[in-house]
Order: sequence, then structure tokens, then C-alpha cells
Amino acid sequence: MRTSLKLLVIGGVAAGASCAARARRLCETAEITMIERGPDVSFANCGLPYFVGGEIGSRDVLAVQTPASLKALLNLDVRTRSEAVAIDRANKRVEIRDLAKGSSTWQPYDKLMLAPGASPLRPALPGIDDPRVLTLRNLEDMDRIVAATESGMRAVVVGAGFIGLEMTEQLYRKGLAVQLVELQPQVFPQLDAPMAALLESELRHNEIGITLGDGIARFETRPDFVRCHLNSGKVLEADLVILSIGVQPETELARAAGLQLGPRGHIVVDDFQRTSDPDIYAGGDAVESVDRVLGEKTVVPMGGPANRQGRVAADHIFMPERARPYPGSLGTAIVRVFGVAAGITGWSEKRLQSAGRAYEAVTVNDHQHATYYPGAKPLALKILWEPDTGRLLGAQASGFEGIDKRLDIMATAIIAGMTVEDLCHLELAYAPPFGSAKDAINIAGFAACNRRDGLVSHTTTLPGDPQVQVVDVRPKPLADAFPAPLQVINIPFPTLRANLAKLDRNRPVVTVCAFGKMSYFAARVLAQNGFSVTSFSGGLKANVDPRSPGKLPLA
Amino acid sequence: MRTSLKLLVIGGVAAGASCAARARRLCETAEITMIERGPDVSFANCGLPYFVGGEIGSRDVLAVQTPASLKALLNLDVRTRSEAVAIDRANKRVEIRDLAKGSSTWQPYDKLMLAPGASPLRPALPGIDDPRVLTLRNLEDMDRIVAATESGMRAVVVGAGFIGLEMTEQLYRKGLAVQLVELQPQVFPQLDAPMAALLESELRHNEIGITLGDGIARFETRPDFVRCHLNSGKVLEADLVILSIGVQPETELARAAGLQLGPRGHIVVDDFQRTSDPDIYAGGDAVESVDRVLGEKTVVPMGGPANRQGRVAADHIFMPERARPYPGSLGTAIVRVFGVAAGITGWSEKRLQSAGRAYEAVTVNDHQHATYYPGAKPLALKILWEPDTGRLLGAQASGFEGIDKRLDIMATAIIAGMTVEDLCHLELAYAPPFGSAKDAINIAGFAACNRRDGLVSHTTTLPGDPQVQVVDVRPKPLADAFPAPLQVINIPFPTLRANLAKLDRNRPVVTVCAFGKMSYFAARVLAQNGFSVTSFSGGLKANVDPRSPGKLPLA
Repeated sequence: MRTSLKLLVIGGVAAGASCAARARRLCETAEITMIERGPDVSFANCGLPYFVGGEIGSRDVLAVQTPASLKALLNLDVRTRSEAVAIDRANKRVEIRDLAKGSSTWQPYDKLMLAPGASPLRPALPGIDDPRVLTLRNLEDMDRIVAATESGMRAVVVGAGFIGLEMTEQLYRKGLAVQLVELQPQVFPQLDAPMAALLESELRHNEIGITLGDGIARFETRPDFVRCHLNSGKVLEADLVILSIGVQPETELARAAGLQLGPRGHIVVDDFQRTSDPDIYAGGDAVESVDRVLGEKTVVPMGGPANRQGRVAADHIFMPERARPYPGSLGTAIVRVFGVAAGITGWSEKRLQSAGRAYEAVTVNDHQHATYYPGAKPLALKILWEPDTGRLLGAQASGFEGIDKRLDIMATAIIAGMTVEDLCHLELAYAPPFGSAKDAINIAGFAACNRRDGLVSHTTTLPGDPQVQVVDVRPKPLADAFPAPLQVINIPFPTLRANLAKLDRNRPVVTVCAFGKMSYFAARVLAQNGFSVTSFSGGLKANVDPRSPGKLPLA
Repeated sequence: MRTSLKLLVIGGVAAGASCAARARRLCETAEITMIERGPDVSFANCGLPYFVGGEIGSRDVLAVQTPASLKALLNLDVRTRSEAVAIDRANKRVEIRDLAKGSSTWQPYDKLMLAPGASPLRPALPGIDDPRVLTLRNLEDMDRIVAATESGMRAVVVGAGFIGLEMTEQLYRKGLAVQLVELQPQVFPQLDAPMAALLESELRHNEIGITLGDGIARFETRPDFVRCHLNSGKVLEADLVILSIGVQPETELARAAGLQLGPRGHIVVDDFQRTSDPDIYAGGDAVESVDRVLGEKTVVPMGGPANRQGRVAADHIFMPERARPYPGSLGTAIVRVFGVAAGITGWSEKRLQSAGRAYEAVTVNDHQHATYYPGAKPLALKILWEPDTGRLLGAQASGFEGIDKRLDIMATAIIAGMTVEDLCHLELAYAPPFGSAKDAINIAGFAACNRRDGLVSHTTTLPGDPQVQVVDVRPKPLADAFPAPLQVINIPFPTLRANLAKLDRNRPVVTVCAFGKMSYFAARVLAQNGFSVTSFSGGLKANVDPRSPGKLPLA
């Protein structure tokens, strides 16, 4: 395309940088100008926490591009330390303030791309302006945290989402004593609580102090430290506080320009990232997108969607006849904490519950590869589906290795509109170091189909009714070493058929085991022998030691 | 289901064991009998090579189940060292020979499951009966190889498929000097040659002798060693030979019973694994299945399909109204060789070529996770698609880490019938240790769409015509250190726009770089400046050092 079209891009990181780069690929002759408030463009914002702890050793690798390199590679006119302060839509120009000089100029555009991003929340709590209460968004924030931290200090991290979790680990790695505070009763609140248990256990194992179900009420400035007062009255002392309780879209510019915003203040865009003004596009953390599973409006402030939205906008500007719509966001997320990982794609159980959506769920415990090959480590995989159709709605995984792989397979399956039946016959790569002849993904499909076929009735809670006979089918040594947290009858599975007389056919039975597999087998035996039986799905693992269930012999 | 149905299962490993186990889950009252010719049932056959080299340290972990454990867990009547010698379909009974006693009995059945597997090929070559020429199928074969090998010996492995490759590594690990011989001009012939180059390089790096494009003609028995005469006249001396040139289905029993066989002798089955006799089912390495991409008949002798076919057969026998058909096989395969891995799912380019199918392909070079995070290692991903529709037909990956993940994502995408467009917007799990904001999968989608949109014309071969101007856009130090294997004009990409005058607009241009990305960027610049330009896709990497392209600075 040969055109002297003027593309003005506000924001020089994920969505903005992707839009500008793709635009140049599509059009050598356009005038492309990029405005960035900070000193850096196109930096690796997801890598910032890892530099704080020294896991990423060089700051230079985070500064992926510079204005000079973008000029050389993409012939972009990049202006850093420049802030867009007003959009004059009628005259198609943006007022740009040079933050160094303090002067303003009007920059004309034919097409405008807004990629302002989102800023860390800083609620108006007493004491929040203490300079030791920090947030992390860009390289300058990172430098401030690095300068403010040294081994032996005490840090309080408020908010246990992925930035909070990553910062907790990295500050610990730097030698700080870290307290993590989270308003929800679990870490990584995107996950359903049982799927986050391994993260919490791993944090505690690494000497992280954890306070759950409690929020920050106020900060008290003391000469030598900050006193953090929690809602519960609990007090934590900190040399440094990291606030990572969420982000808010930076949409004042869009609002002032009269662009349509969503209920939570995000910029509303169409399938091609166009705002309510057809010459103004937007992408990244400041925009709403469409949920890819259920079609509702959603907000997914993550790097992947931002990059791809920037690309879609550029395509629509420079090759509108061939541009493909942005298909919506899924909310795939993963976090690593020390030696474990957990993540989610699509909808969680609690989100489905609060939306009043019908669903079914199953959690399977398995390993990342064949157990006969050295290094097999446990993983848990939870899948959720629509009862009527079996269509997948979401998945979560946690464990030591192969978590990203299972999430990516599930993300692909969900995007494809696959059902639980389809999971049974995914033909995945199997050699002993990499997988199993029946991968955890297949097993989850089998378990879901067994449910749908009425082969097993299940429960995720242990029964409270003393009328219920709870049959623990684990080997006796295991059952003795890690007793179930309620009265049980131990009948190891291999002896079950010979010991049916020990059970009362007139009373309901719940079968339990370590991982939820043998309890299913036992439920099948009992159901076919006339018992009313329910299997405790997921197993007692979580009641024993979620960090090291692999150390237990298999029930 | 309450029934005294007699299920007789011939073969006690993958398909047979899965069928019997699932059958018992579905029906407590059936009489389930399992016949196995060897001494072991339900062993981990994919793990056998890894015990030879000691990577799997315990033989016990490979013997997953025993007749006694299958009796205890599944109430199966398991008869090892028993061979099914004839099927009397009219009277629904099978003649079973007790190999220890030599006596025969007739075993009745209501439903019969055939899972005889496939045996290693042993062509009638001169000298092949030398006892030092071994194959690997079961625990007994493995024990024989373990007993016959010791450090310092010379081994020749014939056939570089996955068993040959795994055995090569494990024999080397045990201290043997290993020569690998393959009839095809590449290792791991399932892959397209360029995608197998890293495996070959890794083998050579680990002191494996490799002879390609050459086959075994005869073995000459000498007192102290075996002399292996190759077709070319080349001679290799060996203390031990492993023959891993493929398998043949064990279908004499089925043939003698008059069951329908396919063109290559495999048992023909329907969607529910039924043979031409509706009371006889079959699964595993001895059966044909349907190709899941293009619908043709295919043979995929792998553990995953075998296990799932056994399950489908049991479902159809015991809950026919709810059984779901086996959807066909994809041929997903992966192999690890020392520190690298490579694999395939769906169709390769050479298979599409020889079938005369229209296709397009692109290979992208990327890394398993963000390059700014420590430990980023290169990977190559090749995807193939249908030109008309963009529907994915196959994928291959090779590299150091994350190969299984990309294959599994692609297998899921292919099964879902996704197109290259769909790959662009797969929302995969991204945190720096796990992936990139734009994963290699997305990048492959982008590259394919660029092709489909006419944004770039590409070539996979370097031009021979001296009229063509080959522009090497790598940085000068890199271009000097690793010169391209032909005459080039070095114009580093950042200086390209300023140096267009160095090129003749009347002569075609091919752009080259290290990984195929900057050459695409350069092609876009040149095309829009009036040049007739083609990008050399995949980059010069393979012409430099496929084992360690990561050590090269990015062009």
C-alpha cells in the first residue's frame, strides 16, 4: 500500500508497539509517529519482576527496543517523555506535551491508535503516599524497587495475583523477608481455591508469610519502617511495600475525547479494534474485549491479547479488505512460584457460579509424563463444561512441570469449541520423557464422559452424615500414615470384592482414596453390587500434603 | 451391566490390557480372560530402551502389572505363556496352547478382542540368524540386550526411527561405541529432512557414527563379532546389532480365521473396532485405522491409539448405546535424542508430495520462551496447510525444550479442523519462564497468513541464477563469521532503506538472514520500493550450525 497516511500511536509498549511495527510492514510510506509518556518503549514488561530478584541478570535485555532502533528498523518517529493530553477529533489532531520542555504541540493524524495501558491501583488509603509504598509497571518503577531493596529487609506484598506472586518470589530471592497479604481467602484468586493450594503450600515452604482473607486498611509512616494495618487489626512492619492489587485502564484521554467507554471505564472497540470514532483505534489493557467462550464483554489485561490487538488494528488500517477480526479473549494466565506453576484458561468454577451459569467440573490427578520414567511429578487438571452439550468452558492446572502444556492444549480445545468427548481422543505426543500413552488431558476427558454416561456419581466434599459409610480404599500403611480427616472403613481396593459383607447395603457409601482414581474403581465395583455409592473426586491428596503427593505411594 | 458375557482378550499389553480393564469397569459380572504369549502382561513397552542405558534404573517399574495384580484389581483370568493358535468362529471358541505344557484347550467366547500387536521386521538376509542380531519388543528382548552389552563394545543400530534413535542413545549411555545405519537419507524418516537435521547434528555431537542412505545387505558371522555389509559395500563391525527397521502386524490368527485384512495385512475394523466378524474386535498395532486429517486408511502403531482403541472396543461391547466411535489416528510422534527433541503430528511435506496433495508450508524459527528470560533456546516449527481453505494438515517441531508442547497444540488444532488463521489468535499461557506474548505457534500463523495475503513471496532454496541479487541482511560481523554459501551483497537490515541504490531494480532479489524473520522484513521494504523480491524462509541457520543457532546473535 502506497500512502502518506499519518498514523499516530499513543503508547509505545505492547499494543502500541505491535500496531506500529505491523503498520510499517504493511506500508513503507506511511508517516508513523509513536508517543510514549515514559522514557522507554517496547520494553519487556512481563519480565520486570524477574530483574528485581536477579533471575534476569541484565537490564538491557528488558529494554527490547529504543527510539533509535525503532527508527532504524521501522522508520518510526518515536517521541518518549511525551504525553498525549487532548484529542481534537474534529480536526484530527492530538495535543502532545513534551514533558522535558513543558511545551505542547498539536500532532495531526489520519488514523489514531490508543494504547495507553493500565496503571496499578493505588486506593486513597491513609498513608499510601509513603514513598516506601511502591507499585510496578515500567522500568522506572523497577529501578526504584531495585534501589529500595537489599538483603535482610522486610517486604510486604499486597495482592497475590500474578504480579504479587512473582514479586514475592523475587524479593525472597534477593534476601528479603516477605509477607504476602491477599483480600481473597486464597492466593492467585483467578483460580478456584483447591487449584491454588499448591502455590500457597510452596510459598509457605519457602518461608513466605501469608495472610489471606485480609486487606490493607492503612499505612502508618514510621521513621524506620512502614506499619501496615490490615482490616482484621493485624499489623505488619515493612521496610518496603509492593502494592499489586490490580490495575485500572488509563482512559482519561479517551473519556475527554468523548469516546465510548464500558461500565468499568474501558474503551469500547469493535471486532477490528475501532473505537466509537472510526478513525480512532484502541488496544491493550485499556480496552474491553469479548469473552471468547460465552461472548460477554470482558477485560483481559495481558500481553498476548494486547500484542495481537495492535496487529489487528494495523491490518484494518492498511489492508481493510483482508483484515481478520480480533476473535475475543480467553483469559489464559499462568504463574510460576519457586518450583511450582498454576494457571487457568477460560472460566473458573467460581466465576461460572457467580454468573449463574450451569456447568459441570472434574479434577484429575496425574503426572506430567509416564510414571515409570524418572522424574514423574504430580499435576492436577480441572476441566469445566456445559452440561447440555459437553462443550468445554474452562480449565485449570497446577503442579511442577508441564502445566503450561496442559493449559495450552486446553486453550486450543476451548477456542475450537471442543467437548469433553473430544478430549478423550486427542492424540498427543508420547515418549516416556514427554507424556503418557493416556495423557492427563485424555484422562480428564474419560472422567468427564464417565460422569456424563452415568457410570459414577461423585462428590467434591467429604460427607458429614454419620449414616454414610466412608470406605477408604488406600493400602493400609498409607491410610494409617495419612489418615482421612473423618471416620472411615479401610478396605484396600484389591480386597474390596472379597469384603463386600463388611458394608451395609442399606446405607450410602462414599469411596475415598489418595488421588480419586481408585475411589472411582471402587465405586464401580460397589454400584454394580447394589450399593448406593458416590466417589470422592480428586482424592485425599489435598488433605495430606499437596506439595508432595508424589512422595506418597499410589493408593 | 449385569451379564455373564465371556470376553476373551488375545494380547495383554496396550490395546488388550486397556480393553480388559475398561470392560471390568463397565461390568463386574463378565468373565474376562486374557491370553498372552509372553511371560509379561501390561508392561511399559515404550520404556524398554531407557532401561538398557540405565536411565530407568529399575526393571520392576516397567512391569506395570502382573497376572496376580490384574486378578486382584480387575478380577481378570490372565494366562501368560499361552498362545492363541486358532479361532473357531462358528462355535465361538479359540484354541489356546499352553506353551509350557505344550497342551491345547478350547476357550469359548461371546466377544473376542484381538490385540496381537506387531513384531519387529527381520528380513531374510544372509546371516540374520546370528544370535548377536537382536530386536526389541518386550521385556525378554530387553533382558537379552542388557545381558549382551557392556561398556566398550561396538554396536550397530539399523534403522533410525524412534526405537533406533532411542536405542542408539541408550547404548551410547551404557558405554558402547554406536554406529547408526538408515536406508533413508536422513534420521527419523517420518520428518521432512530439514526438521531432522538437529537430531542428526546432536547424534554426531555425541560421537554416534551415522551412515545415511544405505541399508543392510547381509551379516557375516565371525567368531568375535558380526560383520555388517551395507548395500554400498561399506562394512561395519559389531559386537551387537539392533535391528529397528519397522514392524509387521501379527495377523496370522486373524487371516486364518478369515477376517478381512487390509492391503498391508492389517486387520480391518469399523469405527467401533469391530472386525468383519461382529463378535470379534481388534485394536493396537495389528489394525488399520482411518487417517484423521484426510480420511484415508492408515496404520499408526503407537501406544496412545492402541490404548484408546482397546477402550472403544470395551465400550461398544458393554455399553453399545453410549459408545463413541474411534475417530481415527493422526500419527503424532516425538523422539528425544540426548539434549534435543523432534516430532510430528499429521502429514509431512514429503508424504503430501508423494500422495499428490496440494499444500503450502512454512517453517518459523523461534524460542521456547521469551528471549529476555534466561535459558531461551531455539526451536523450529513447520506447519502445513491446504491452499484453498487454510486448514491445517500437519506440523513438525524440533529444538531443545517445549517441542512436545508445540506438537500437542498443533495436534489439537489439526483435530479441531483449525486453519492457519486460527493459529494467529490462540491465546496461550504466557509468563517469561513458559512462553512468549506471541508464541511460535502464533508466529507460524502470522507467517502463513502473510503468505496467503500475498504480502511475501518466499523460497526454501537458495537461488542458482547469477542474475538474482542475493541480499544478506544480517549484521556484518555475523555475515563475515558465517558466510552464506553463495555470492551475496551484505546490507544489514537497519541500513537497507538508505542503501536501495546499491541494488538493481531490474534484477530479481532474494533476501536472506539467520532465521527467516529479517529477510521477510527486508522483502517487505524492497517489494514496496518496486523490487521483485523473494524471502529465503527459514534462514541460513541450517547452513551454519543447526545445533547451536542460539549462540549466534540475532540478525
